[in-house]
Amino acid sequence: MTSTPVARPDEVRRYNRASLLRLLHLDGPSTRAELASELGLNRSTIKALVDGLAESGVVAERVPRPGRQAGRPSLLVLPQPEAAVVLAVDIQVEHVALALIGLGGEILGRNSWKLHSRTRAPGEVLTRIVDATAPLAADLGVRPVACGVSVPGVVRRLDGHVHEAPNLRWSDVALGQRLAAALEIRVVVGNDAELGALAEHLRGTAKGVDDVVFVSADVGVGGGVIAQGTALRGTTGYVGELGHMAVRPQGRDCYCGSRGCWETEVGEAAFCRALGLPEDSPRGAVVVELRKLANDPAAARRRLGDLAEWLTIGLVNVVNLLGPELVVLGDLFTGLPDAVLHDVTDSLRHRSMVSRAMGGVRVERSTLGRDAKLLGAAEVAFEEIMDTV
Amino acid sequence: MTSTPVARPDEVRRYNRASLLRLLHLDGPSTRAELASELGLNRSTIKALVDGLAESGVVAERVPRPGRQAGRPSLLVLPQPEAAVVLAVDIQVEHVALALIGLGGEILGRNSWKLHSRTRAPGEVLTRIVDATAPLAADLGVRPVACGVSVPGVVRRLDGHVHEAPNLRWSDVALGQRLAAALEIRVVVGNDAELGALAEHLRGTAKGVDDVVFVSADVGVGGGVIAQGTALRGTTGYVGELGHMAVRPQGRDCYCGSRGCWETEVGEAAFCRALGLPEDSPRGAVVVELRKLANDPAAARRRLGDLAEWLTIGLVNVVNLLGPELVVLGDLFTGLPDAVLHDVTDSLRHRSMVSRAMGGVRVERSTLGRDAKLLGAAEVAFEEIMDTV
Repeated sequence: MTSTPVARPDEVRRYNRASLLRLLHLDGPSTRAELASELGLNRSTIKALVDGLAESGVVAERVPRPGRQAGRPSLLVLPQPEAAVVLAVDIQVEHVALALIGLGGEILGRNSWKLHSRTRAPGEVLTRIVDATAPLAADLGVRPVACGVSVPGVVRRLDGHVHEAPNLRWSDVALGQRLAAALEIRVVVGNDAELGALAEHLRGTAKGVDDVVFVSADVGVGGGVIAQGTALRGTTGYVGELGHMAVRPQGRDCYCGSRGCWETEVGEAAFCRALGLPEDSPRGAVVVELRKLANDPAAARRRLGDLAEWLTIGLVNVVNLLGPELVVLGDLFTGLPDAVLHDVTDSLRHRSMVSRAMGGVRVERSTLGRDAKLLGAAEVAFEEIMDTV
Repeated sequence: MTSTPVARPDEVRRYNRASLLRLLHLDGPSTRAELASELGLNRSTIKALVDGLAESGVVAERVPRPGRQAGRPSLLVLPQPEAAVVLAVDIQVEHVALALIGLGGEILGRNSWKLHSRTRAPGEVLTRIVDATAPLAADLGVRPVACGVSVPGVVRRLDGHVHEAPNLRWSDVALGQRLAAALEIRVVVGNDAELGALAEHLRGTAKGVDDVVFVSADVGVGGGVIAQGTALRGTTGYVGELGHMAVRPQGRDCYCGSRGCWETEVGEAAFCRALGLPEDSPRGAVVVELRKLANDPAAARRRLGDLAEWLTIGLVNVVNLLGPELVVLGDLFTGLPDAVLHDVTDSLRHRSMVSRAMGGVRVERSTLGRDAKLLGAAEVAFEEIMDTV
């Protein structure tokens, strides 16, 4: 609330320009008429904005590919990927992926490497990120203007301080500050599940859905929540740790200091136990075993029944607490055979009173695959720069 | 987003007027200078607004009571309770309370009655609410202009449809519509824990705190969440059912269709079991037993240790999911002896990784007592009318 609640014309123009760019960035090529209708702006305002953006090379206008419409086609306005490039980094327990992503969300180039105990120290990871970025950017002839990083841990959003990332064995790492100093660009660090949820909401299965929970199993289990269209975040930006719901009080001790956490019952180690693999099996082995069960519902239910029950119990809690319209399952959960996923969904709908009230919550697999967190990291970086492109 | 993002002068005036009224309503009597500074408006704008409101009798200006300051005192602007009166109704499992509440939050008059199985049918409750309101309003010489209702169940906010209120044995009751038709005023129906959280946030222990979870034990256990200053609500307005987190998978069956729900371990029946009372003991008996333990920490821990452990497990989940700064405990939980509450807080801080990251979550007792939900119901009614007072 200010003493001048009326925006100045240049503020209005900047606001409209950023809104138009965000729309093109997220929804892709559009005609001027579509932009006008979507933004509620008149055509002359749209013309002025598009002309300005085209002049500075941020968008281009092209004849659409044949087949889109007959007669004289409307020009499409396209975001130009190179006009604004961000660096997205996804630090996982067993590997790091990074990508340069252009306006519009196109991955222009990428790199990744495995992590193991020797190379997992924060300093090592940081150096390698910086070293990998320069040649990739040079090859592509672009220069990232901001960076988003996904970390599997408890992150303070304000400054990208990683408080605890237990599966990485990191604690109190000033990741945001150190990376910003090394890269000399703005850096935003987020919790991996939060960024996964954001990506699903903006570009994936949950596009257009305002109340979504994204739950994914990697080594750990994490969850991100979009409530009323906005990422849910606690005090000082700490995001929730869904994987550390205590679902089984008599269960295994968890490194987090609690016991019987959801993560211990449905994380990668639990998948290994269910599939008869050693607990530290490589991801690939787990995926192969899951695939074998895809066409054998009886065996799938026998092997994965317990894990499915714990998954259901956790989901009942999540749905009863948050009342989402849609639950998106990511990472290892996407490998659950159809029969098992069907049982989980069915049981969740029966046992959650909030789901019953809503007429049934939807449960779907992530369609972004392992790129969800990387794309989410890109989006928080884009958010930082959209006003200044 | 619209084609005219610039507010018209009359819109600006109405917006400022409502902001000023909301401030007086929630923060109480203030000087013009305080209002100007709080709202970021200049003194001539404040003067015009206050003069207009005084003319229509919505506020009055008075010399403050002596002692507030020396010299020539600034006049205080006071909201006039009778200028806008709402009806607040708190339907609990064992009783109904209603009150007429004036601008500024003062309870002008109230009434309440016990509910038992014969009088708990929706039609009975509705009729009694309507019958009790008219004479109360007549006695006070006021007329409510909107109504807020708190219900212990799953409520669709849009139209006040009560989907399930299991402890009342209600299902699919068009409470909002029926009450609005009978009272001929606007009616807003909310989940009791959501409204309790709102009241704590606006007028209670959590005033000024933006990330709060309110958890209370009556017959059922409910929880409301304020995230980033706003009440958290799921799809189509259904609010979460925190009491139906499954904390004890091998525990008792719950009427909700799940098992080992938090409510079964820390609700009123669990208090009765812990205190050696029959499960259907009246509330008063429970409170008396709790009071006896207040000065005997050893006995308190012996009797309530298990209940405290389940309370802690649920709170660890809630804090790990939502990362609140403050947890406010309401209703029966406020009767927990200091020693027990201390143990719960301590254990929560150790076992929740999100609490550790934040440097410790605070846990406090509600200060609004049994009026929390009633006051919350009043606030949702006031929200409806603040623009038009």
